[in-house]
Amino acid sequence: MKAVEKLARAVENIDSLLCVGLDTDIKKIPKFLLKKKDPVLAFNKKIVDATSDLVCAYKLNMAFYEALGLSGIISLKKTMEYIPKNVPVVLDGKRGDIGNTAQKYAAAIFDYFRADATTLNPYMGEDSILPFSEYREKLSFVLCLTSNPTAREFQFLKNSGKPLYLQVADRVKRWNKNKNLGLVVGATHPGQIKDIRKAAGRMPFLIPGVGSQKGDLGAAVKYGSAGGALALINSSREIIYPSSGKDFAVQARLKAIQLYQSINLARN
Amino acid sequence: MKAVEKLARAVENIDSLLCVGLDTDIKKIPKFLLKKKDPVLAFNKKIVDATSDLVCAYKLNMAFYEALGLSGIISLKKTMEYIPKNVPVVLDGKRGDIGNTAQKYAAAIFDYFRADATTLNPYMGEDSILPFSEYREKLSFVLCLTSNPTAREFQFLKNSGKPLYLQVADRVKRWNKNKNLGLVVGATHPGQIKDIRKAAGRMPFLIPGVGSQKGDLGAAVKYGSAGGALALINSSREIIYPSSGKDFAVQARLKAIQLYQSINLARN
Repeated sequence: MKAVEKLARAVENIDSLLCVGLDTDIKKIPKFLLKKKDPVLAFNKKIVDATSDLVCAYKLNMAFYEALGLSGIISLKKTMEYIPKNVPVVLDGKRGDIGNTAQKYAAAIFDYFRADATTLNPYMGEDSILPFSEYREKLSFVLCLTSNPTAREFQFLKNSGKPLYLQVADRVKRWNKNKNLGLVVGATHPGQIKDIRKAAGRMPFLIPGVGSQKGDLGAAVKYGSAGGALALINSSREIIYPSSGKDFAVQARLKAIQLYQSINLARN
Repeated sequence: MKAVEKLARAVENIDSLLCVGLDTDIKKIPKFLLKKKDPVLAFNKKIVDATSDLVCAYKLNMAFYEALGLSGIISLKKTMEYIPKNVPVVLDGKRGDIGNTAQKYAAAIFDYFRADATTLNPYMGEDSILPFSEYREKLSFVLCLTSNPTAREFQFLKNSGKPLYLQVADRVKRWNKNKNLGLVVGATHPGQIKDIRKAAGRMPFLIPGVGSQKGDLGAAVKYGSAGGALALINSSREIIYPSSGKDFAVQARLKAIQLYQSINLARN
């Protein structure tokens, strides 16, 4: 099944736009898990068990796993295998390189880790995106307007009156011949999401920034899913680290329920 | 020792600006190596043995190793350990993410793999660069003007008359408080390298694109090293795959000597 269909099905069946970010930091997980052979995997399994009926997708940020070297790669691979097959997984790597190199990154993400979707950086242009979009059954979200404070340094620069993030949205829409590209749009820019949706047509949005980064959930939901488009509202730190006690997974579930309900309130 | 000093020393001692890219593709290495337990490592060792007296640095592109999953990470780590301590290594990952994530990528590249230097993507602004520049003894090259054909799609967009690649050069110069940032500038843009050098002051340049991508070696050397600045002239495919026979390392050495000599002719 194509990743976009798998995602649409998950959104419908679970009635959810919630994407939980498994950005698992070994320094932040409950201390008692450090006795386990693979603490990161043990943590992820409990979080997945506690939330998989609430999410339309999981997002795993590769950096948190790479920082642990070989053992992190093992935890990542095993987590990917553990997540139920009907839940799409975004492997968030923000890769971007020349064509022959982008092919190798795509092989790592789609063939080795078997992710459904990924994130890409547009700086180097279409060459760096094509090897990913050629995986027709997969989905790639290209950075458009990011959620971090210094996003505006380059992304807001205007050319012929149009900021870089809209230039990116326009190009990605043009590159989207296989209907498997989307955009990353931070919820911290409520004033801009509307314009990006207008430029992007119905391309799926991956929207980070509603949790610790204090983005605008209302605007994220409204413009993210405008016209029936797919939108993944992601939260990582705020969901997965509410407690360092034995009850961490229960507390994470409660956080996930809260956000799930807030999103669905905003949808209606 | 700081990476910039290590690099300056290597450039002087070896009288070389040549950086050999170990972008080792298991599909392109001599077939007889596939009998080895770790063919990629075996290939890299032979190339390093055959070229380490000719280079000021090696560059390893992470994608080629990640594509092989766990075994690729092992090959990468072991290659990093094998390269002589006096030769600086650029671990080329072109990472770029929000602050807390960039910290993790920096830990992977500098703490786990123990690289001297890396490459970064500027799209998300200073947040994504700072966690790297805070490793004061390391060196990070930020993508400015890349060597690939579609580089111009975004990098040439002008704001107030100044193209994005020069906006990036200006910003990186401002961020460079720890004197450990440089720029990636493709040799395929000879007309632009001069302007970038002017904007960048004496920041080190990493210059890809002189090999298979047919960039302009003369302009790369002239403006790369103008005013005594550090410049790494990188070639990967063209150096490491000249032969698929038993003599592959000897042939790679001959290719490296040719480029080493061409670079030094252009320097004088």
